[in-house]
Amino acid sequence: MKEHTLKLRVRYAETDQMGVVYYSNYFIWFEVSRTEFFREKGLDYNRIEKERKIYLPVTESYCRYKSPLRYDDLFTITTWLSDVGRSRLTFEYTIKKDGIVVTTGHTKHVFIDPAGKPISIPKDILGLIKG
Amino acid sequence: MKEHTLKLRVRYAETDQMGVVYYSNYFIWFEVSRTEFFREKGLDYNRIEKERKIYLPVTESYCRYKSPLRYDDLFTITTWLSDVGRSRLTFEYTIKKDGIVVTTGHTKHVFIDPAGKPISIPKDILGLIKG
Amino acid sequence: MKEHTLKLRVRYAETDQMGVVYYSNYFIWFEVSRTEFFREKGLDYNRIEKERKIYLPVTESYCRYKSPLRYDDLFTITTWLSDVGRSRLTFEYTIKKDGIVVTTGHTKHVFIDPAGKPISIPKDILGLIKG
Amino acid sequence: MKEHTLKLRVRYAETDQMGVVYYSNYFIWFEVSRTEFFREKGLDYNRIEKERKIYLPVTESYCRYKSPLRYDDLFTITTWLSDVGRSRLTFEYTIKKDGIVVTTGHTKHVFIDPAGKPISIPKDILGLIKG
Repeated sequence: MKEHTLKLRVRYAETDQMGVVYYSNYFIWFEVSRTEFFREKGLDYNRIEKERKIYLPVTESYCRYKSPLRYDDLFTITTWLSDVGRSRLTFEYTIKKDGIVVTTGHTKHVFIDPAGKPISIPKDILGLIKG
Repeated sequence: MKEHTLKLRVRYAETDQMGVVYYSNYFIWFEVSRTEFFREKGLDYNRIEKERKIYLPVTESYCRYKSPLRYDDLFTITTWLSDVGRSRLTFEYTIKKDGIVVTTGHTKHVFIDPAGKPISIPKDILGLIKG
Repeated sequence: MKEHTLKLRVRYAETDQMGVVYYSNYFIWFEVSRTEFFREKGLDYNRIEKERKIYLPVTESYCRYKSPLRYDDLFTITTWLSDVGRSRLTFEYTIKKDGIVVTTGHTKHVFIDPAGKPISIPKDILGLIKG
Repeated sequence: MKEHTLKLRVRYAETDQMGVVYYSNYFIWFEVSRTEFFREKGLDYNRIEKERKIYLPVTESYCRYKSPLRYDDLFTITTWLSDVGRSRLTFEYTIKKDGIVVTTGHTKHVFIDPAGKPISIPKDILGLIKG
């Protein structure tokens, strides 16, 4: 399962009075990266929600902050799937600045129907994800 | 039309690297204040959306920043309706810290149906709002 | 080490198009809860930063989402210290709605000086925290 | 004074339960656009703050929402200076999706020193801004 790398830049809004990125914003970038990971695999997450009424909420999130990012920093997020279950996915993330790892994390997800019930990952989605 | 006053405290997440509240966060507080304004009038905005499928999106927003708010500051938002049209509302806001006005603003809204079409303000809602 | 409980309400801004609270916002509430935990112990975190130039950044954050929170939900966050090291603290959090646990999490922190170097937890702070 | 155009994509975090972008997030994009406007002119706003201790807070912000943006929408922000005073700037913004204007707005700013006192726009900055 191939990894995906995305380049982003820190927004002023993402900083706090400590002069660094506020800790919850990393999870927003993880999500941006998941969207692009899916797109690269040929999956449009928005259409999965809108057209197929399949949702992929987060069940767990974790982040380890090694060194801070600051306003206007350019950084990369590398994203890959470390686990694919019957209904569940685990994404891993590594954020690097100037080639140095500054943050790592993961998120766990479950595919659900509109009623919130876990469903098996549809075969076409599974095929593309694993591609 | 009576005004409503709400007391809030600045969250760390709401600051930026300038050491003050990031400018877009005032609009989030305006919305919190609108929710409480409605509740005080006997209106549950959440149920208006969920049960009656009536929505009140923002069509215009404005904020004037006189002096900054900082982390952990206690402040008040006073909210009132300055205009009530057939489908439209204008809310005014004044934020004070220690009795001094630090921010003013307004937002304009339109009542719409699920298709996004403006609708007349329902009579029961109008009655309560003007109460 | 006594726990602290805070009551909050979900803001509209904190929801996403899935109709539930966006997953990163729980970490913002964890921080609000830490601020109030400190205040209850007689510690003003803002003054610790401003006057003593001591900072307590997050080194790890974790959240487990059992069931979603929605707009206007009232909920409680219970916060306590599960570990106090020489320079480090671990906070645990439990979020309940109507008495039911909906989210749990923890954050790890390190006391640092303005240069970012870990420092021993000052004795007066340690005394109050453990009180 | 030449305009600047930036392409962005709506993040999931930027939506709310109405299924559209939450209204305060437009101001965050305005700021991203200002940063890139400055960069295109040869100005690094981050270094202006860090190295010269000159700040450009917002004194007024305004946004008019014509039609909503949604998750994963690609859009452009066009930014230009409509007024340059002794200490003050006014930025105008137009957001388009598929060539159609969906949002317009402006922000007013003042150059200040670390004490918060307005200062004349430094000549080198003025020269580049007007370029």
